[in-house]
Amino acid sequence: MAQLPEYAIIVAGGSGSRMQQSLPKQFIEVAGKPILMHTIDKFYTYNPAIRLVVVLPESQLDTWRELCREHAFKVFHMVVAGGATRFGSVKNGLDVITGEALVAVHDGVRPFIETTIIKAAYEAAAKYGNGVVAVAPKDSIREVTEEGSMAVPRTKYKLVQTPQCFQAGILRNAYEQPEQDFFTDDASVVEALGEKIVLVEGSYRNIKITTPEDLILAEAFASQQV
Amino acid sequence: MAQLPEYAIIVAGGSGSRMQQSLPKQFIEVAGKPILMHTIDKFYTYNPAIRLVVVLPESQLDTWRELCREHAFKVFHMVVAGGATRFGSVKNGLDVITGEALVAVHDGVRPFIETTIIKAAYEAAAKYGNGVVAVAPKDSIREVTEEGSMAVPRTKYKLVQTPQCFQAGILRNAYEQPEQDFFTDDASVVEALGEKIVLVEGSYRNIKITTPEDLILAEAFASQQV
Repeated sequence: MAQLPEYAIIVAGGSGSRMQQSLPKQFIEVAGKPILMHTIDKFYTYNPAIRLVVVLPESQLDTWRELCREHAFKVFHMVVAGGATRFGSVKNGLDVITGEALVAVHDGVRPFIETTIIKAAYEAAAKYGNGVVAVAPKDSIREVTEEGSMAVPRTKYKLVQTPQCFQAGILRNAYEQPEQDFFTDDASVVEALGEKIVLVEGSYRNIKITTPEDLILAEAFASQQV
Repeated sequence: MAQLPEYAIIVAGGSGSRMQQSLPKQFIEVAGKPILMHTIDKFYTYNPAIRLVVVLPESQLDTWRELCREHAFKVFHMVVAGGATRFGSVKNGLDVITGEALVAVHDGVRPFIETTIIKAAYEAAAKYGNGVVAVAPKDSIREVTEEGSMAVPRTKYKLVQTPQCFQAGILRNAYEQPEQDFFTDDASVVEALGEKIVLVEGSYRNIKITTPEDLILAEAFASQQV
C-alpha cells in the first residue's frame, strides 16, 4: 500500500476569556512567537510535506494574516473559518480534505507535542483506523454521583490529548452525524459510529494552554527548547 | 462549640526516582528553598498556631535536620518517620495526634496550595466531618475497559488534590482498617468506612511536583510570588 497523504486540522477557537486577556490564546506570544505558530511548526517538523489546515474563528482571520506577515511566518498552510462549536470547526476543516488520507486533528494551543508522538498517532491511524493520544492521570479520581462522589481506580482512566488521527473516510463518516453534547473530542465523535478507539501514549509536556498558569509553563518549556 | 485545634500531617515520601535526580523531590530547591519548606510555610501562614507533623522516610530524617539548619528554617514542626507505604506514613503521623482535632493530610510536594483553600477544607471538616480538595479535569476522559476504552463525560469526574481534612476521630477509625490496594488517598480510606466525602474546590496552581516538567512550573510560580 502506498503511503497515504497526511493532513493536520489544527483547531484554534479560543477567545481569550479564560486567559484573562483580550488576545485569543492561540495568538498569545510565547518565546516571541504566537502559540499557534509553534504548534504549526511541530507538524511541519514532523513532516515538511504535511498539508496543514488551520481553523480559526471568522473574526480572527485578518489578525492571523497580519501576524503571519509580522512574524514572516512561511510554513505553508490553508486557513478555514471555524463553526459555532468545535464540532463545526473540525467539520469545516474536513471539507477541504479530499480523497484517501490520514487526518490528524490537533488543538492549536498544544504547541509542545513531540514529533515522535505525532508519528505514533499517524502510524496507529494507518494501521488501525485511528490513533488517539492520551496519558494516565497523575491524581486520584472521584466520580461525581447523585449522592455525592466516590473514589474510582485511576488506572481505569486516561486523560485524552491531541493529536487524534484518523483515516479520512472514517472521520468524514463520523462528522456526518448530528452534533451531540457528549462530543467533547474527535474520538468521541468517531466512537459514536461504532469505531474502536486506539490509544497512543502521550506526554505530560503536551499541555493545552488554557489558563494563565499554563502560559507560565509554556514560557518555561519554550525557553528550554532553544 | 469551641474551635478544635488544627493539625496538618504533611507527607513526603518521594525518593526522587521519577524526578531523574538523586535528591528526594521534597528536598529539591525551588526559589532557593527546599519544596517541603515552602509547603510547611503555607500551613503556617494559614494558621501560625497550627500543629505540624512532617512525615519523612527514616533514611531522610538526618538530611532534613541538616537542611533545616542550613536554611535556618524555624517553623515549629514535629518530624515522624514514615511507613513502607503512604498509608503507613499517614498512620504514623496520626499516632502523635491525640484528642479532638481537625487534621489535614497534605502532600509535601504541593507547595502552591492557597491559604483560602486550606481554610475552606478545614471549615468543611468542622461542619461535615471532612473536606477534600479536588478540581475538574481539563481534558476529555476515557475509561479503560476490557475491550479497549470508551469516552465518559468529564463533568462526572474530579481530580483529587490535597489537603484532605478530617475530624480526627473519623480519620483514626479509618486508619484502623487493614490497608487496601484501592486506598490511593485519605478520602478513599475514610470512604471505605461508609463516610460521605465532601469536595472542596481546589486550584490548578496546587500542583503535585512529580516530574521534571512540574519542577519548571514550580520555579516559574515561585518567581512570581516574591
